Amino acid sequence: MSLFEIFRKKEKQSANIAKERLQIIVAHERAARNSPDYLPALQKDILAVVKKYIDIDMDQIHVNLENNNDSSILELNVTLPGS
Amino acid sequence: MSLFEIFRKKEKQSANIAKERLQIIVAHERAARNSPDYLPALQKDILAVVKKYIDIDMDQIHVNLENNNDSSILELNVTLPGS
Repeated sequence: MSLFEIFRKKEKQSANIAKERLQIIVAHERAARNSPDYLPALQKDILAVVKKYIDIDMDQIHVNLENNNDSSILELNVTLPGS
Repeated sequence: MSLFEIFRKKEKQSANIAKERLQIIVAHERAARNSPDYLPALQKDILAVVKKYIDIDMDQIHVNLENNNDSSILELNVTLPGS
């Protein structure tokens, strides 16, 4: 699935929902296949940072990580009740 | 410019470039217009976290922040020489 397809799918799902939403997409294209994949670790750090700004539970976060040969896509979706 | 247009534009630009690339997109839909916009602060924190994993200079980072009535989109693009 391409970056574009993932994005479009999420855009559809979010239509007409009046809630506070935060979506974070991290796309990593590695130059070499054996270069390190740090996205799983980066994911934890980004979530820790986001928690400084908004009060979220882990069950409000949906995480998706896709790995291909030379690229990885991490997607974090947070939906909060409308303020 | 919609989320989709931003994403498609970047996808085109990146075609056929064999470099290490990291792209981070943060989309924030606020439930109310007066709810806080923390993306500028979040941007600094995310960059600090990314620097733990890859050795980047500030001039390798391109940042774009767009604000609309009730949503903000932060885009961070990092391109590194191929490893």
